[in-house]
Amino acid sequence: MNAPGKKAPRIQWGMLGGGAKSLIGIVHRIAADMGDDYRLVGGVFSSNATAGVQFASDLELDPRRAYPDVDALIAGEKALAPDQRMRLLTIATPNALHYEAAVKLVNAGFHILCEKPITTSVAQATELARLVRSKGVIFGVAHTYTGYPMVRQLRAMIADGAIGAIHKVHVQYYQGWINPLLRDAGKRRAVWRLDRAQGGDSSCIGDIGVHCFNLVEYTTGLKVERLLADTDTGVPDNAMDVDGSVLLRLTGNIPGVLCASQIATAEENNLQLAVYGRTGALKWAQETPQRLEYLQEGKPLSVLTAGQPYNTPSARAASKLPPGHPEGFTDAMGNLYRGMARAINGEPFDPGAFPGIEAGVRGMRFIDAVLKSAASGNEWRSL
Amino acid sequence: MNAPGKKAPRIQWGMLGGGAKSLIGIVHRIAADMGDDYRLVGGVFSSNATAGVQFASDLELDPRRAYPDVDALIAGEKALAPDQRMRLLTIATPNALHYEAAVKLVNAGFHILCEKPITTSVAQATELARLVRSKGVIFGVAHTYTGYPMVRQLRAMIADGAIGAIHKVHVQYYQGWINPLLRDAGKRRAVWRLDRAQGGDSSCIGDIGVHCFNLVEYTTGLKVERLLADTDTGVPDNAMDVDGSVLLRLTGNIPGVLCASQIATAEENNLQLAVYGRTGALKWAQETPQRLEYLQEGKPLSVLTAGQPYNTPSARAASKLPPGHPEGFTDAMGNLYRGMARAINGEPFDPGAFPGIEAGVRGMRFIDAVLKSAASGNEWRSL
Amino acid sequence: MNAPGKKAPRIQWGMLGGGAKSLIGIVHRIAADMGDDYRLVGGVFSSNATAGVQFASDLELDPRRAYPDVDALIAGEKALAPDQRMRLLTIATPNALHYEAAVKLVNAGFHILCEKPITTSVAQATELARLVRSKGVIFGVAHTYTGYPMVRQLRAMIADGAIGAIHKVHVQYYQGWINPLLRDAGKRRAVWRLDRAQGGDSSCIGDIGVHCFNLVEYTTGLKVERLLADTDTGVPDNAMDVDGSVLLRLTGNIPGVLCASQIATAEENNLQLAVYGRTGALKWAQETPQRLEYLQEGKPLSVLTAGQPYNTPSARAASKLPPGHPEGFTDAMGNLYRGMARAINGEPFDPGAFPGIEAGVRGMRFIDAVLKSAASGNEWRSL
Amino acid sequence: MNAPGKKAPRIQWGMLGGGAKSLIGIVHRIAADMGDDYRLVGGVFSSNATAGVQFASDLELDPRRAYPDVDALIAGEKALAPDQRMRLLTIATPNALHYEAAVKLVNAGFHILCEKPITTSVAQATELARLVRSKGVIFGVAHTYTGYPMVRQLRAMIADGAIGAIHKVHVQYYQGWINPLLRDAGKRRAVWRLDRAQGGDSSCIGDIGVHCFNLVEYTTGLKVERLLADTDTGVPDNAMDVDGSVLLRLTGNIPGVLCASQIATAEENNLQLAVYGRTGALKWAQETPQRLEYLQEGKPLSVLTAGQPYNTPSARAASKLPPGHPEGFTDAMGNLYRGMARAINGEPFDPGAFPGIEAGVRGMRFIDAVLKSAASGNEWRSL
Repeated sequence: MNAPGKKAPRIQWGMLGGGAKSLIGIVHRIAADMGDDYRLVGGVFSSNATAGVQFASDLELDPRRAYPDVDALIAGEKALAPDQRMRLLTIATPNALHYEAAVKLVNAGFHILCEKPITTSVAQATELARLVRSKGVIFGVAHTYTGYPMVRQLRAMIADGAIGAIHKVHVQYYQGWINPLLRDAGKRRAVWRLDRAQGGDSSCIGDIGVHCFNLVEYTTGLKVERLLADTDTGVPDNAMDVDGSVLLRLTGNIPGVLCASQIATAEENNLQLAVYGRTGALKWAQETPQRLEYLQEGKPLSVLTAGQPYNTPSARAASKLPPGHPEGFTDAMGNLYRGMARAINGEPFDPGAFPGIEAGVRGMRFIDAVLKSAASGNEWRSL
Repeated sequence: MNAPGKKAPRIQWGMLGGGAKSLIGIVHRIAADMGDDYRLVGGVFSSNATAGVQFASDLELDPRRAYPDVDALIAGEKALAPDQRMRLLTIATPNALHYEAAVKLVNAGFHILCEKPITTSVAQATELARLVRSKGVIFGVAHTYTGYPMVRQLRAMIADGAIGAIHKVHVQYYQGWINPLLRDAGKRRAVWRLDRAQGGDSSCIGDIGVHCFNLVEYTTGLKVERLLADTDTGVPDNAMDVDGSVLLRLTGNIPGVLCASQIATAEENNLQLAVYGRTGALKWAQETPQRLEYLQEGKPLSVLTAGQPYNTPSARAASKLPPGHPEGFTDAMGNLYRGMARAINGEPFDPGAFPGIEAGVRGMRFIDAVLKSAASGNEWRSL
Repeated sequence: MNAPGKKAPRIQWGMLGGGAKSLIGIVHRIAADMGDDYRLVGGVFSSNATAGVQFASDLELDPRRAYPDVDALIAGEKALAPDQRMRLLTIATPNALHYEAAVKLVNAGFHILCEKPITTSVAQATELARLVRSKGVIFGVAHTYTGYPMVRQLRAMIADGAIGAIHKVHVQYYQGWINPLLRDAGKRRAVWRLDRAQGGDSSCIGDIGVHCFNLVEYTTGLKVERLLADTDTGVPDNAMDVDGSVLLRLTGNIPGVLCASQIATAEENNLQLAVYGRTGALKWAQETPQRLEYLQEGKPLSVLTAGQPYNTPSARAASKLPPGHPEGFTDAMGNLYRGMARAINGEPFDPGAFPGIEAGVRGMRFIDAVLKSAASGNEWRSL
Repeated sequence: MNAPGKKAPRIQWGMLGGGAKSLIGIVHRIAADMGDDYRLVGGVFSSNATAGVQFASDLELDPRRAYPDVDALIAGEKALAPDQRMRLLTIATPNALHYEAAVKLVNAGFHILCEKPITTSVAQATELARLVRSKGVIFGVAHTYTGYPMVRQLRAMIADGAIGAIHKVHVQYYQGWINPLLRDAGKRRAVWRLDRAQGGDSSCIGDIGVHCFNLVEYTTGLKVERLLADTDTGVPDNAMDVDGSVLLRLTGNIPGVLCASQIATAEENNLQLAVYGRTGALKWAQETPQRLEYLQEGKPLSVLTAGQPYNTPSARAASKLPPGHPEGFTDAMGNLYRGMARAINGEPFDPGAFPGIEAGVRGMRFIDAVLKSAASGNEWRSL
């Protein structure tokens, strides 16, 4: 940990994937820049080594640190003086490549921020978690929505008892973007999410359902203990789920419902969470992320906004601007990077600062349970 | 049917229940008055005959038509000249009394508007439907939400192909009013909905879940073919469902999800419907009933409002005021009365004008299937 | 005043204008019916006597009380026993006819609910007010928006000091309905509001600006002391104002701004009020009338809704339904009728229950001052 | 201009002001980083030279380029090889220091992005504009709101005739942050905006009114030709305007109204624009910047959102993320930086890409005219 008042030096940072015009690459670069905590120095930007070097050159990075693969990256960085090395690597490659890269990086002592899902199987995830713990590296999962100030406010208020004991949870994530692709067999082939070899076993649940799941566990502090799922493929000749509704039972047998769809036609990114407790409720919607609705019995609806002095410390710390100045998706991601920087710089662990490896493992268990429940004729499955 | 241009005389109308300060009585009286179609002339306003006469007197009705019971009403009205008799009776008594009264009235040839649920069992409902058909009376069910202009717009647009073939349905109805009563054993005893003897076998599903169900079948033209339900009683010492999530499969195996709760703490009357089709979607929320969201792929969101020239004829006919002048719950109920008046006056049957006996029977089947699915360990049940 | 607990008999009620398919007639009839306080018995429904009788017949009223003109009405009613006479007359004729009818009715001792503007000049309004006071009749002005529960809540909260001393007022009323008519010279001739002979000297300010003005004075308890206005006719060959912006100074030199337009293209009925005080603010919008926003420094936004136990008594009394059940424009008008019934039945005067003759006179002064300010090159005018 | 496909090298960039914890400094740094177009290399970060060096050190910049003042900066940069020099300077110092610094920088050939107001008098602004033109440098004004995608969409749609000829404009900007400070004489002294020596002659109009003005001229393509203003100081012992309402007449004598307040108690950053044309209207609100309402006569309301394929090219280029992923204030600022980078790199001038020196001069004329109108007893003033 650094001396009080002394700014820690920027953490040298690299990416796996995220090169060229990659949207996720842009988001991560903007997010990492926001807090003056990181300096992008290299990575494996592309599976094509020449393209990776070109990308590094475009960004005016040292092209020698645009490595052709993870092994070369590890070797190259290890050859540098310890204080000249990358310390954090962001993994933003296709899902199927996460596990192997992560294992190598963890073994080499790098910290990791990994896109979700962290692996393609529960077994891999469990093994990776074991390794992370044994090596003592810091591992974050890019559940970006946990970075919004009002999600952190919601989490803190539940913990503070603002709504009493939880007795019902509703979460939904409706998108429509796959719909036009799904119905056009030609276009469909271009969607890697609908290709089991690239996207893994699940499209809807693996991509967006798992965000719902993470958001519930992150904010409520409860665990989903068992679930019963019904999924749908939208059209007969598609093998992947593009829609799913999941009955939940959380710690203490509390009921919940999780609704996800990629064929919710023309919806944009409609993620909503409502948590109902004995005396109040909290509701948040991703498309208006600066607002948090607080319902209390017998009182007017309260609408909390980001950046206000009444925000909880965790929410306050997640806003950079005064109230009424919208902050968005990259700002939320920026808060995950901020949290990881603090951890990397040795500050005490804050479980609300970013989702860790345990959240990654839980997400894999959730996806697995949903797929098995749906395949088995809609039976309850434990996580 | 009346001569063209000639206004039909007002239909003499009576109520079972709805006396004194009864809220539902007030709603029905305002609704029936709106179209100049009815004249309230009497009824069985109270289980206490003296109170019923007093109520009639307060309303300046002929106290001789404030009958002590249904038998007396039938006898009294039959003693009048045919054109002096009540023709429509609204049944707004406790649920357990619906069936017996309805059977008597139908046998006597009266038309009926009945609060839901129409009976306390599927068997009764089926029998009542048989009787209604054989007697040729007009029977409406007070699914008030079908009376909103934008619900009718939604229904017509789906029928016109505005969203293409439906592939996903989401409906939710969240209320919180039972929550504070549920947790207070003393207060709970005063809630007839939580008393099986008065309210029937179901609280949440029977009271509000069935509105969701009706709204889905009314607007989509599809049938719920099977369902799988998980219900909850909120507290251990309560025997009635106060929360339920239901997986649906509609005609053609289309997936749906129905979420209902009476312990969605501090929610008011948050009923929302979203229907997703191949090319578009339609979304409506009861608390802002004048708006209908129309989502189309690749186009801006369209927000239709009531009273506009572009409304479908069915929606247009359901608005009395110019755009921007809010119409509400009693106006929606008024549209059911309007529709029934037209049917009573001999106009051709319009299946969108009011939910009929078939909708009442379907609702009973739905409640029954939910309860059985929940009781059986969450198995699929056919309707 | 009536004995406690004893319901007063229905007040016999008549209308001037509002016959046939008249929208305003429908609104008034629904509104008057809502509280079981009135019984429509006759009126002068049309300038065409035969049409008036036909209308009465359609409504199943005694056709002898469908009078050809006001004089006949007064004579006919006076010929009845006192307890058989109409007591309240609603004036819903073209504006230019209000004054003469009102004077006759007041002289004859009838109570009046008059559409606004109550006359076509300040002088007439002042004279009418003098007469109303001298005769002791009850006179209401149909500023319907004052009947919404949340407007009454807003008024009561300001009076209770919820926002501290007022220091700024913003009110706007944007409609677009005149726009397409204005630009089509053929259609324009059919718009009586744009014809000085029928509509009076002002279109926009006289029709909707005056509602803004009334709402400000009704809710804040302040008076508009002076104003400076800029009006516009939209197209060169139109002589009437269809748009106006007005700078206000209220009691204590408090600044305000009033924005009105009938060419706010495609707006429906977008009336909004915001009152800012030293410690808080209150905001209301007519198109979502069940909501009231309460802003407090350093606290989350509070959204109050109608029908809640926390409503002020005046707001609570103005809701018939539970929270979440929309009530609308006719319900608001119904609350004015309720208030007048109480006054007619001898209850103590409640200045919040309905706008009286003073509000009518103030409205005329406002219209006059706006027109004079605009005509004089935008100078300040006192009211 | 660069070869096609070849990314231009990063532009070396510096700041005047914006050091330490400065909020505006953070916003500019995030914004400039977003497009990979700039590299922060130095500046005059503080009026305290040591603090400036410390800040540069914290950011890991070369401390030799943390200059003590503008003269030193110019001398230092000129001493570098041409391709090693700063090319763009952002001026984020107190208003009173803008002019002198800008003149020096322009004379030395630097491009400038200047916070508004660009000077403290019209004369200075006019002179600066003359100088900018004669030197051929690129000069941008930080009217951040013009950087939102939906503001650009609005502008493009008006130009494309989507609403027909404009006939009415409404713009408002309501904030409440000064209110608690204003009323506390002790706190008030700490508010530089309320101190004429630091903030210039105007608080409300100079700070936020001018954003309204700029937004109107930027989006409509019309000029405000004359205005009449009423301003208020909120409390008697304050000399600066904290509230103002302004009547506008735009090119062609089109009426408009501009409402601004810093004592709109508890408002956050409520900036709204509505432009009404003959056939349609466009409405935008800064607190929900991703939405644009498009009203058309006789059609449903259209709600356009950012990032959609149907966006105009200018709006599309201003979004980085897919629809439904909120972008906010720093993203809007980032678009100004993007636009300036293109201009600096030699791309053809795009008047929609960022507000230039002419917009800065217009803003000064607006502030001047408002203050003179208010001081002269609310007379019309030409710009």
